[in-house]
Amino acid sequence: MNLIDQRHNPCIIGLDPAINQIPDYIKRKRKDYGNPFEAVRDTIIEFNRLIIDAVGDIVPAVKPQMAFYEQYGGEGVKAFEETVKYAKKKGLIVIEDAKRNDIGSTVKAYADGHLGMVSLIDGTISSSLDVDLMTVSPYLGSDGIKPFIEVCKELGKGIFILVKTSNPSSGELQDKVISGDGTVYEAIARYVAEAGIELMGERGYSSVGAVVGATYPQEARKLREIMRKNIFLVPGYGAQGGKAEDVIHCFNDDGYGAIVSSSRGIIFAYNREPYRSKYRPEEFYLASKQAAIDMRDNVINVLKQHDKMPDW
Amino acid sequence: MNLIDQRHNPCIIGLDPAINQIPDYIKRKRKDYGNPFEAVRDTIIEFNRLIIDAVGDIVPAVKPQMAFYEQYGGEGVKAFEETVKYAKKKGLIVIEDAKRNDIGSTVKAYADGHLGMVSLIDGTISSSLDVDLMTVSPYLGSDGIKPFIEVCKELGKGIFILVKTSNPSSGELQDKVISGDGTVYEAIARYVAEAGIELMGERGYSSVGAVVGATYPQEARKLREIMRKNIFLVPGYGAQGGKAEDVIHCFNDDGYGAIVSSSRGIIFAYNREPYRSKYRPEEFYLASKQAAIDMRDNVINVLKQHDKMPDW
Repeated sequence: MNLIDQRHNPCIIGLDPAINQIPDYIKRKRKDYGNPFEAVRDTIIEFNRLIIDAVGDIVPAVKPQMAFYEQYGGEGVKAFEETVKYAKKKGLIVIEDAKRNDIGSTVKAYADGHLGMVSLIDGTISSSLDVDLMTVSPYLGSDGIKPFIEVCKELGKGIFILVKTSNPSSGELQDKVISGDGTVYEAIARYVAEAGIELMGERGYSSVGAVVGATYPQEARKLREIMRKNIFLVPGYGAQGGKAEDVIHCFNDDGYGAIVSSSRGIIFAYNREPYRSKYRPEEFYLASKQAAIDMRDNVINVLKQHDKMPDW
Repeated sequence: MNLIDQRHNPCIIGLDPAINQIPDYIKRKRKDYGNPFEAVRDTIIEFNRLIIDAVGDIVPAVKPQMAFYEQYGGEGVKAFEETVKYAKKKGLIVIEDAKRNDIGSTVKAYADGHLGMVSLIDGTISSSLDVDLMTVSPYLGSDGIKPFIEVCKELGKGIFILVKTSNPSSGELQDKVISGDGTVYEAIARYVAEAGIELMGERGYSSVGAVVGATYPQEARKLREIMRKNIFLVPGYGAQGGKAEDVIHCFNDDGYGAIVSSSRGIIFAYNREPYRSKYRPEEFYLASKQAAIDMRDNVINVLKQHDKMPDW
């Protein structure tokens, strides 16, 4: 939250480096690598660094989506690790979108590996992926969440629990009405509100947050009532169709409580309107910078219109 | 299923290589590695190979749990990749337990990376993690499942969708009663049965299966009625408390339809009763082999008692 204040911006950028959309001039440099997975690794690292350099003083955080890295196996995960290190070196918060879920010793391995510390063979411990916050899925119940909360408590980190996701079919399970208990997403929201109590920060918000899609503004309004002290991570802005007006209910009246995320619409702005005609592929990061500024201005305008502007 | 017939065994082994339980003599060999994550990688690879060599002609499949690999970042995922390659070389089916879930281009990246093929920078495509089957989570609805099914259809692979998990708190969400529609786990089971129709195999079972915990035998009985043509992946046997008698309802009357999995109880049998006193740590894989044989015999005995023995 302090970084949101410093940047005057509640918007963040998703780092989803889909290889087929990365400008050719970056890929061409690795054409003679013997190992094509190492070539992908270094392509992703360079692309992400240029994005981070361009937007690092505009946004408070970046959100790498692990799927786009681990699809390339070990080398892809190395690109993830380098991206996290670089973003943190540049002073950014790193929110990993991984939607992990499991139980027992397995979920502890996820929590330790992504947020915490892992044991090495000589008995020493070390941080591994070392992100600041990550997304987790609630299907398995509290057994699948508590180990994350324990690690967060110990190391001052945070999680976002999936509540109402941005996709068209999210309602198939999440909108089901439980007998006498509201919808599934409301039941999960009540769990998030309760679980968050033990991780309250000094600014009055919990380190246990919720994922609430920008594409469901009416549901967001209800969820804001249930989870007053939990921060919403709001994906679905931009490429998925969510607009600045749609995210207003995700914010509390104080103008805090939501982080709006856009991925493809920002990082690949260079080949999308209205930026395409203005930037060459070699200047893709300048298009991303402008798109990040435009997104911030749009969201802040809507906050102003609704009299929810923080006291910056 | 053909491998189950060949081995006369519906039991599989989870490869969850928790570093702190791997025998010291394997870890000591890597004490002088400069990079401790590479030391962990090679320790895991050697441990898994010894297990695979010991049990490879007893079980039809192994189930590596991705959390125990990715907690060590890129090097850990390399250990996963080597384990998959080695198991497949030895003729085993590989079921990845990863419980992935996402939407849109992201879930496609998971499906392509784990089961399918990924694009490289020169436009060629290659398999990456290349497992045969994997577990997926249903919280996001069918948007989060369909891309997996597409890849399975194209490449002859399969998935297991989480339905009723083995952990104590699984009921917090999964047992909730939906107005006029049974429990959440029954609703997901109906989805699995329906989604599986388009991936029916020649033996009458679908490549879309379900995860049903060994610790919930009564729920398994109901689920078997809903999902007659879907294979159940049954975790929770052994260390989590599930017994051979508990898994009987996961099988159809023909003796097929379930794969029973045990992890720690088999791979770390050397430091558990009744094997501990009989094997030295250097013979840990012999303890695992005996534990795998005992598990097979226990499950087959129960199948016989219930007159569900396949015609082997």
